[in-house]
Amino acid sequence: MLTQADNDYLCRVGPGTPMGNLLRRFWMPAIISTELPEPDCAPVRLRLLSEDLVAWRNTDGSVGIMQNACPHRGASMFFGRNEENGLRCVYHGWKFDNEGQCVDMPNEPAESNFKHKIKATAYPTEEAGGVVWVYMGPIASRPVLPRPEWTLVPAAQRVVTKYRQENNWVQGIEGGIDSSHVSFLHSMVAQHKPNYTGGQLAGVGSSLFSADKAPEFRVATTDFGLMIGARRRVAEEQDYWRVTPFSLPFYTVIPNLPEGDPHFSGHGWVPIDDEHCWLLTYSWHPSRPMSDFGEQPGHPAHWAPMQPGTRIPRACAENDYEIDREMQRSMNYTGIANVSIQDRAIQETMGPIYNRTKEHLGSADTAIIMMRRLLMKLARELEAGAEPYAAQHGEVLTVRSAGYIAPAGISFVEHSEPLMRVSMK
Amino acid sequence: MLTQADNDYLCRVGPGTPMGNLLRRFWMPAIISTELPEPDCAPVRLRLLSEDLVAWRNTDGSVGIMQNACPHRGASMFFGRNEENGLRCVYHGWKFDNEGQCVDMPNEPAESNFKHKIKATAYPTEEAGGVVWVYMGPIASRPVLPRPEWTLVPAAQRVVTKYRQENNWVQGIEGGIDSSHVSFLHSMVAQHKPNYTGGQLAGVGSSLFSADKAPEFRVATTDFGLMIGARRRVAEEQDYWRVTPFSLPFYTVIPNLPEGDPHFSGHGWVPIDDEHCWLLTYSWHPSRPMSDFGEQPGHPAHWAPMQPGTRIPRACAENDYEIDREMQRSMNYTGIANVSIQDRAIQETMGPIYNRTKEHLGSADTAIIMMRRLLMKLARELEAGAEPYAAQHGEVLTVRSAGYIAPAGISFVEHSEPLMRVSMK
Amino acid sequence: MLTQADNDYLCRVGPGTPMGNLLRRFWMPAIISTELPEPDCAPVRLRLLSEDLVAWRNTDGSVGIMQNACPHRGASMFFGRNEENGLRCVYHGWKFDNEGQCVDMPNEPAESNFKHKIKATAYPTEEAGGVVWVYMGPIASRPVLPRPEWTLVPAAQRVVTKYRQENNWVQGIEGGIDSSHVSFLHSMVAQHKPNYTGGQLAGVGSSLFSADKAPEFRVATTDFGLMIGARRRVAEEQDYWRVTPFSLPFYTVIPNLPEGDPHFSGHGWVPIDDEHCWLLTYSWHPSRPMSDFGEQPGHPAHWAPMQPGTRIPRACAENDYEIDREMQRSMNYTGIANVSIQDRAIQETMGPIYNRTKEHLGSADTAIIMMRRLLMKLARELEAGAEPYAAQHGEVLTVRSAGYIAPAGISFVEHSEPLMRVSMK
Repeated sequence: MLTQADNDYLCRVGPGTPMGNLLRRFWMPAIISTELPEPDCAPVRLRLLSEDLVAWRNTDGSVGIMQNACPHRGASMFFGRNEENGLRCVYHGWKFDNEGQCVDMPNEPAESNFKHKIKATAYPTEEAGGVVWVYMGPIASRPVLPRPEWTLVPAAQRVVTKYRQENNWVQGIEGGIDSSHVSFLHSMVAQHKPNYTGGQLAGVGSSLFSADKAPEFRVATTDFGLMIGARRRVAEEQDYWRVTPFSLPFYTVIPNLPEGDPHFSGHGWVPIDDEHCWLLTYSWHPSRPMSDFGEQPGHPAHWAPMQPGTRIPRACAENDYEIDREMQRSMNYTGIANVSIQDRAIQETMGPIYNRTKEHLGSADTAIIMMRRLLMKLARELEAGAEPYAAQHGEVLTVRSAGYIAPAGISFVEHSEPLMRVSMK
Repeated sequence: MLTQADNDYLCRVGPGTPMGNLLRRFWMPAIISTELPEPDCAPVRLRLLSEDLVAWRNTDGSVGIMQNACPHRGASMFFGRNEENGLRCVYHGWKFDNEGQCVDMPNEPAESNFKHKIKATAYPTEEAGGVVWVYMGPIASRPVLPRPEWTLVPAAQRVVTKYRQENNWVQGIEGGIDSSHVSFLHSMVAQHKPNYTGGQLAGVGSSLFSADKAPEFRVATTDFGLMIGARRRVAEEQDYWRVTPFSLPFYTVIPNLPEGDPHFSGHGWVPIDDEHCWLLTYSWHPSRPMSDFGEQPGHPAHWAPMQPGTRIPRACAENDYEIDREMQRSMNYTGIANVSIQDRAIQETMGPIYNRTKEHLGSADTAIIMMRRLLMKLARELEAGAEPYAAQHGEVLTVRSAGYIAPAGISFVEHSEPLMRVSMK
Repeated sequence: MLTQADNDYLCRVGPGTPMGNLLRRFWMPAIISTELPEPDCAPVRLRLLSEDLVAWRNTDGSVGIMQNACPHRGASMFFGRNEENGLRCVYHGWKFDNEGQCVDMPNEPAESNFKHKIKATAYPTEEAGGVVWVYMGPIASRPVLPRPEWTLVPAAQRVVTKYRQENNWVQGIEGGIDSSHVSFLHSMVAQHKPNYTGGQLAGVGSSLFSADKAPEFRVATTDFGLMIGARRRVAEEQDYWRVTPFSLPFYTVIPNLPEGDPHFSGHGWVPIDDEHCWLLTYSWHPSRPMSDFGEQPGHPAHWAPMQPGTRIPRACAENDYEIDREMQRSMNYTGIANVSIQDRAIQETMGPIYNRTKEHLGSADTAIIMMRRLLMKLARELEAGAEPYAAQHGEVLTVRSAGYIAPAGISFVEHSEPLMRVSMK
């Protein structure tokens, strides 16, 4: 439970907010690179941390991101002409470069030096992993771009997609680091029935997730954020550990099954504003192409059907996420077809900004409690003048998840670290 | 006319408001029973007095109503699994019974006693008259369920429907107890022309309603609310009395014609929140089945065409209630086809919360003035600690309307009481 | 740049605001006359200066405009019956005349004098130029109706249309008096290319607008508002002057080309409320019929395709004004097909109320700066008790634009005045 003041402190990220200042210390995924498919193509609108922006790809291939309002008289730069390494406002022809500098002002006398005085808000960008990254913080604090593993592998070994969620980013993270919900929200009814009817069928049809629905949690604070271990007893003296990294400021990687093909998937919840976020989903294989991955029914996170021409899923609040009550009775736990939409349904219906003054957290929510504390601690430290370590040392953010079966009694941190730190491989 | 402060006092019913506290002392119609057609069927969302709730029918047939947000982490309980006499949140499987008690918490260790500490806001329900009733007040003040006559007759002698209005509940009541408007809003043009052109056609085609358009009002305060008499002179020394009960906290019964089949119809305006209400319409016959009633064109209140899949009429503000100006010129007074939609058009276009600081009330508005005073008086008394009599003595709410022709000079209260009090029959 | 306080002072026009009080001193275009095509036709809703009104045409042909809420109990008068020189509320039959006086109150006893005490807010109207004009100010200050030239010519010599814009009226005026933007926003790409590539093709394909994109501005304050001269050097010692009148309180006339058919077109931005306005467009020929004008592709201001049954263009914010990026690359500057929609796109995307605290005005914005100062000065003078001269002397508002080629060094005011003042002709 949080006070209303702490809830606001944690969730609100507009210009000038402490948490907004913290997030602005990190490079953030702005758009998918293919949204700007070629030099001098049409600009795109974006909104990040409550700032209205426009992105365009220059003649030289670089990407500019600036305020979506001409500094002259406020016309939308989205309608601008993208030409010769700059974006030109269609109202009076003022043209801006990547740095927001006005480089042409054809409606003022040539002898005027007015254009040199005009600089729009613009942010540095870089491209990696098929994503355009943006740094919206003070230039003096600008770090090198961190490279999570999915940005380091060849393009063929990676799939990156995004869709829009109608809720605050923090409750997205809370869903992502909540290892306990997979035994329910994403489960099949058949596997659950045993537990509900007293255990006489225990083990029949169960998976590693559902065999023990009340995992024990261990959470360790690390340089990249949190290392979150969920331990399920699967056999005598044998534990199944799912270890999720919470990687600053808003990333996770889903733990793998111990066996099977070792590819990874994870999420980032990128704040559009206080009541909306992008769900970025990345999947990668460290060593082999994922050519068929995008079509595998086993990984539905990437392709819930979208509303035409948008990045908004067709299954949404207005249609109750296309819930099918018969499916809910007989097949899966929710009656909602897609794992990714199941998460979306929960996270959105908690409210635009989840009210944490009324919740009741249990032992399964340990990671959530620690994630909130960590973010608020870092924001308070930044208010006091201390830059966040992980932002300045982005190399620590290159982490995987882990999933393994181990004898009872191990130290999960020592056991997990070599699996998670890519640099140690 | 009211001050803005009094208008707010009268209209606003959210948690903690004085008028909201008064309404919470009364059992209220929550949903139509058929919205939950069978045990363990899909739950339904509802919103009452600005509280977001979910209702479900248990395995044993009883109905639970609880907050539509899991006390754990706020997930919508609407998506919940309705199973074995409880509603289970799909996020982590927490299950709640009718009283809001958490009865299963499968994601926490079995030895944990955490579930015993978790109790959601839930409200007692009862079913009567094909309606699920809910009591949202303090348990210490919980009265027995009052039984208006339409809940006492066999199901075949009753029709109950509801639709949604986009306005505050109080202006609904004001329309319901306003006997004067029936001579205008619901009239036919042919019957009115005489009056407009000077009276030379008076009596031709007129009904008891239209013969005297300026009825005299007598209003008496009673134990159930108000007894509202509208007297129209219909012949020498002969009065047509229409007597409408305003039955606390938001009910009316439409007066009958003196002749004809003595069935009754009435309305309740159930606050969804300050700017929306349910219009509940109930019709009943004290002694015989109403098998064909639902299809009779003479009683259109129950079946204005709805927007598909909703309880919202197709004729609405966006389409100007499908007004037909040619119909308005030549046929009926409004050009709006349906009596119930005529009322809706007026009540909604007064504004979401009608601004009573600018009105000009006449003698025909006596009942309205007294209804407001009564509600505000009871709310103030409750603030001072006095429970409302009618809530604690619900048997007084079992009243009919009356409509009769009587000699001039009678006492309408004495004459009406035996007709209206079902207990005196 | 304005402070936030000045921006509010300039833009907000609801009842009681200083700028609203200033506008209420002027007769304003309320509706197009054909919106009320014949006596006793259906009334129409309108909203002006944040007041909700209803207009109807009486049996005698005159137009009444009154509050769209019956003074009795607030029912919408839009649903009213328009009969025998008055508008009658359908709720209880109260009838009002042009002056808002209640003239019939059939639901109150005949002996009651209540109707004499009931007067709704109603405003004087006049018709001229195919438009219904309304005066919403204090009756003591009511001036005679001013007659811009387009209202003086025979109907066949005039075209008047209107559509709705989703923005504050002041940024509409700013676009209208901004002679500099025509060289960009409304230009063709072919004509611009020379300038962008260094001038080697200068003159090829250029027009008088595009030859000199940085006109010099001269602005003079006059009795009707502002005389705004934009001077473009078109040949040695030869200037092309475009002179736009800003005619109080919100009108412009577009400057003509020096050659060609001397008809005129202009605009008025009539405030619906602070965030919406009507764009009134009037075209007229002083001496000959404009029979084919309405269909000429050269004057598209009057007929952008509308959303069916509305006065809202189909090209709107939701569809990015139907921008065609290929058209923008190869044909015109914006990729937006229609000149009028080009203006709309800019003015609307500046925001509902353009934030003037962040702008950077150049020398090309001189007229805009002076227009704001003039309006604020007049509003402040009115606050101090001084009526605006132009409102009381409406004859000064009968002005044209001017467009001519003249030798360098002339006084544009002296040269323009005989061309602009119709009274001097």
